[in-house]
Amino acid sequence: MGRSAGNLELARERGLVDRIAFDLAEAMHGADLVFLALPVGAMPAVFEGIARGMEEDCLVTDAGSTKQDVIAAARAGLGARIGRFVPGHPIAGAEDSGAGAARAGLFAGRDVILTPLPENRAEDVARIERLWTACGARVTHMLPDAHDQVFAAVSHLPHLAAFALVDDLIGRPNAEACFRHAGAGFRDFTRIAASHPEMWRDIALANRTSLLDELDAYIAKLGEVRDMVDLQDGAALDAMFARARSARKNWKLHS
Amino acid sequence: MGRSAGNLELARERGLVDRIAFDLAEAMHGADLVFLALPVGAMPAVFEGIARGMEEDCLVTDAGSTKQDVIAAARAGLGARIGRFVPGHPIAGAEDSGAGAARAGLFAGRDVILTPLPENRAEDVARIERLWTACGARVTHMLPDAHDQVFAAVSHLPHLAAFALVDDLIGRPNAEACFRHAGAGFRDFTRIAASHPEMWRDIALANRTSLLDELDAYIAKLGEVRDMVDLQDGAALDAMFARARSARKNWKLHS
Repeated sequence: MGRSAGNLELARERGLVDRIAFDLAEAMHGADLVFLALPVGAMPAVFEGIARGMEEDCLVTDAGSTKQDVIAAARAGLGARIGRFVPGHPIAGAEDSGAGAARAGLFAGRDVILTPLPENRAEDVARIERLWTACGARVTHMLPDAHDQVFAAVSHLPHLAAFALVDDLIGRPNAEACFRHAGAGFRDFTRIAASHPEMWRDIALANRTSLLDELDAYIAKLGEVRDMVDLQDGAALDAMFARARSARKNWKLHS
Repeated sequence: MGRSAGNLELARERGLVDRIAFDLAEAMHGADLVFLALPVGAMPAVFEGIARGMEEDCLVTDAGSTKQDVIAAARAGLGARIGRFVPGHPIAGAEDSGAGAARAGLFAGRDVILTPLPENRAEDVARIERLWTACGARVTHMLPDAHDQVFAAVSHLPHLAAFALVDDLIGRPNAEACFRHAGAGFRDFTRIAASHPEMWRDIALANRTSLLDELDAYIAKLGEVRDMVDLQDGAALDAMFARARSARKNWKLHS
């Protein structure tokens, strides 16, 4: 099931789906595993919808970038069957979306985080793990609140910061010259500013509390940097840049 | 000439230089073209040094990321011979530096900005242009102040923002989890945070006025985004993300 007829047809043409459904209860008929891949703001309605058609032994998991809000939506929608939902988050973001952006091997060597619930049976969590392992991914577990804090810092804040930087260039008198002369640093810094607006609107709202903490900390840090520049404090700039460079050089993408 | 003996030896081993000198006046002997590639903060002393050994027909150009301060240093150091200096900026940044990071073909298809001076002879500017064209680069001209404003926006600010984001993660209680779970978005956003601290300290100080304007504008923009998140203004977030995405998708690296 999806929201755009064109996208669904493309998915069928590319052999990504066998069958298209336009009714959630109908789509649930005979399903033993449901994978929810949609903007997190759309989750509450979908959990309500699938609850109506869910069969006894059906297991549900998701690809939502935030976990506390998705779990709350699942509890509200699934009620007593909450134990059938194993929350997950594959770390394989890309700025393109839709069936046209589908890639075999997307999850090979990537991390998938599961945030199992107290109500989950160990065998159901293990089944979802095997599903991801079969795609070549490596599964780790986190608590939902720790997950949301970490991803506010390393994913949600950078996305908003990239969107903001690009938006800040638009409409200024020298915007054309700015875009014309921007180089490889700009390209990489702003790659994620081409991400899906609705998906990121939902993430920003869903993870609001942690994200506000991160925005406040980042704005304060940029204020410190501003003061170093204003006071021409070369030693402080040098020390900060060297610390960051060392941490960045020691970091390796976990793959 | 360079500042580190190990780097100079590596440059000789790799065939990047024929001769190493430890005295500027000596290095200038017989030189008909001098290319200054060093942190912009080191330019004033180097212009003074080369002025002492500069021969009559010697032409000087540079690779400095800022132009108004380098031109001021050249005027102070070269005095009446300022017309022999053609200021330049190749847009081919990389986070690695030194002779070990040298790459043939680095400038192929890249932009090089020249900011010629009123004192330059047209034939000297043309000679520097031919030098870059021979490396496969495309040469454009700008005024020094327009150059510094544009690069504050599309290069200097993103570098400081990337350094600041990485530095903001260091030392927090969940820093290890943050670096462990950071993905491809973080990788690209922070690539330039592995850049050379001294080079970027000098750029930040050299382009202080324009960079302060950019930092103020960016901090204000992030404050607006913070308020949208705080007020749960999904429509405003959606509109801003869509604007930025459209601009970023329409942008193509000029190569």
